[in-house]
Amino acid sequence: MKIDFNEAVALLKSRDNILILTHRNPDGDTLGSGFALLRALRDMGKRARLINADPIPKKFSFLCDGIVEEDFAEEFVVSVDVAERKLLGESLSEKYGERVNLAIDHHETSRLFAEKTYCESDSASCCEIVYLLIKAMDTPVTKEIADCIYTGCSTDTGCFKYSNVTPRTHRIAAELIEAGADHSRINVRMFETKAMGDFMLQKMCLDTLEIFGEGKVAVISVTKDMLDECGVDKSALDAIKPITRQIEGVEIGITLKEERDGVIGVSVRTGESCDASAICAHFGGGGHMRAAGCEVKGTMEEALEKIKKYIIEEII
Amino acid sequence: MKIDFNEAVALLKSRDNILILTHRNPDGDTLGSGFALLRALRDMGKRARLINADPIPKKFSFLCDGIVEEDFAEEFVVSVDVAERKLLGESLSEKYGERVNLAIDHHETSRLFAEKTYCESDSASCCEIVYLLIKAMDTPVTKEIADCIYTGCSTDTGCFKYSNVTPRTHRIAAELIEAGADHSRINVRMFETKAMGDFMLQKMCLDTLEIFGEGKVAVISVTKDMLDECGVDKSALDAIKPITRQIEGVEIGITLKEERDGVIGVSVRTGESCDASAICAHFGGGGHMRAAGCEVKGTMEEALEKIKKYIIEEII
Repeated sequence: MKIDFNEAVALLKSRDNILILTHRNPDGDTLGSGFALLRALRDMGKRARLINADPIPKKFSFLCDGIVEEDFAEEFVVSVDVAERKLLGESLSEKYGERVNLAIDHHETSRLFAEKTYCESDSASCCEIVYLLIKAMDTPVTKEIADCIYTGCSTDTGCFKYSNVTPRTHRIAAELIEAGADHSRINVRMFETKAMGDFMLQKMCLDTLEIFGEGKVAVISVTKDMLDECGVDKSALDAIKPITRQIEGVEIGITLKEERDGVIGVSVRTGESCDASAICAHFGGGGHMRAAGCEVKGTMEEALEKIKKYIIEEII
Repeated sequence: MKIDFNEAVALLKSRDNILILTHRNPDGDTLGSGFALLRALRDMGKRARLINADPIPKKFSFLCDGIVEEDFAEEFVVSVDVAERKLLGESLSEKYGERVNLAIDHHETSRLFAEKTYCESDSASCCEIVYLLIKAMDTPVTKEIADCIYTGCSTDTGCFKYSNVTPRTHRIAAELIEAGADHSRINVRMFETKAMGDFMLQKMCLDTLEIFGEGKVAVISVTKDMLDECGVDKSALDAIKPITRQIEGVEIGITLKEERDGVIGVSVRTGESCDASAICAHFGGGGHMRAAGCEVKGTMEEALEKIKKYIIEEII
C-alpha cells in the first residue's frame, strides 16, 4: 500500500526496535539512506540496526563510522532504496522479504512489496527523501547524518551531473553543507580517487581501443592478463565500461572481457539512437535501453567479429 | 580600487556601450560570465560586445548562440574572471590593459589592475557573482543567461565536486535550473563527451606519466607534437590537468606543456596538504590553493628537474 509523506513520518516516529535493510551490492544511496536513518532514529532514543546482504565497499565504510552494533528483536522493518523484494539479496529476501513494514524508495519500478511504501519516483536519490523525513521527525541533522545524506545525493546523480537532479537536490545539498557535510572530501573519495591499479588498467584499455561503423562504434577489450597485471578484480571494469560511449560520435560503446575459458562477457552502452538491450538480447542477454550485457562464445577476436558483423548488418 | 557589490551594480546600470573582456584561453567561467553579462546588458537596452584574445573552444560555442555582433565605440570596459592585466592575452592587454573600468573577479590573487574591482575571492566561480549582479540589476534571468551562468558554476567546480563549492553555489544552481538552464545537457557536453582528438591526447599523456616523491607527486608532459598529432589545441589540456591528482596517494599533480620555444607551462593541482599557488608563486606564477599555474624556462626535462628539486627539497 502506498502511503504519503506525513504517514511515513508518523509511522517512523511511532515505532521502535527498527531493522533497516539496504539493497544487495550496496551503493552510496542505499547505504547513505540507511545509516542516516539509523543515526536519526538512535538520536531520537530508539534502537535501530542495519543489515546488508553484501559487504560494504571500502569507499563507503566512513558512513558507519562510530556506529556500535546493537542486537535486539526487531519490531519494525524498513527498507531503503529497494525497489523489489529480490533486490534485498537472496539471504535477506528469504528472511525478511515478506516482513518489510515500510519501504522508502525512489524507483519508478518500485514494486510495492512492503506492507507500506513511501516512494517518490521523481526524487534524484532515496537520500533526498530520507533527509526530508528526518527533518520532519524534528531530530537534528548532525554532521554525520549530513555526510550520509550527501553521499547518496552525490553518488546517485554523478555529482549533480545527471538529468535526475532537481532544484530540490541542490537546495538539500546547500543545507547539508551548512549542516557540516564534508562535501569535497566525500566527492574526492567517490569520484576523484583512482587506485593505481585502476589507473593502469585504464591506460592499458585505451591501447586496445578499436573504432568501426564510421566512428559510431567503439570497442575496448580486456583480458584476464590485464586485470592480473594491474592487480585488480573485475569490479575495476565499472570505471572502464562508460569510456567508449564518451567519445564524440560514438553511439555504441562496447567493452569485451575474457569471462572464463571460451566465453567473452560483453557490456554495451548506447546513446539515444540505439537500444543496448536489443543488441544484447540478440546474443541471449539483456538489460536497459542505455546499458546492457550478454555473453558470446569464442575467443576475444571471434566474439568481436560476431558482434561487429551483427551491428554492421543489422543495427547501424 | 576595490568597490562593493552595490557600487558594482550601480556602475553597470549607469553605463552604456560596454566592452566585455574575458581571459586568454577562455574557459566556461570567463565565457559564461561574459556572455551572461552581455545578454543581461542588452536585455536592459544597452549596447554590449565581448572580445577574446583566443578563439572560443567549440564546446563553449553554445554560450553565444543567437548573439549578433555589434560594433560601437566602447565607453566602458569590463573584464570578467581576469585576475591580472596579462591574463587578457597579449593583444588585448596591450590595447585595453590600462583601460579596464571594472574588473569582476573571484581570484584570491586578483591584482586590482582595473580602475575599479569587484572581487569575491570566496565565490566558487565568477559566474556566481555575475548572476547576483544581474539579479540586482533587476533584469530577468532568461534561459540563455541561466545556461551561461550554469556553465561557469559547473565547470569551475568540476560539477559541484570541489571544495570551492558553498551553499550559495548550490542555491544558485537550483535557481538556474528553475530559470530553464539545460543542466544535464550542459554537463554531458562539459564532462561526458570527449572529441576523438582529446581522447587520443589522453591516451598519449598517460604514457608520459611519471610518479615521484614516494607516490605523492605525479607528472604528465605534453609536447607540441602531441597536440598536433591529435589535432587539438591547448584547450584540450583542461581535461588532462586533473588526471594526475586523481591517482590514489598523489598530493601534487603536475601537467607540463611546451608553451613556446624554451618556455614550459606548468599546471599544478594539489590535495589538502599542499598549496598549489605557493608552489607556483615560487616560479613567478599564481592561482588558487588547489589549482595554480606558472611558467618555467628551459626544455621539458629542465623544467621538470627544477620543479622536482623544489618540491622534493621544500614541499614534501
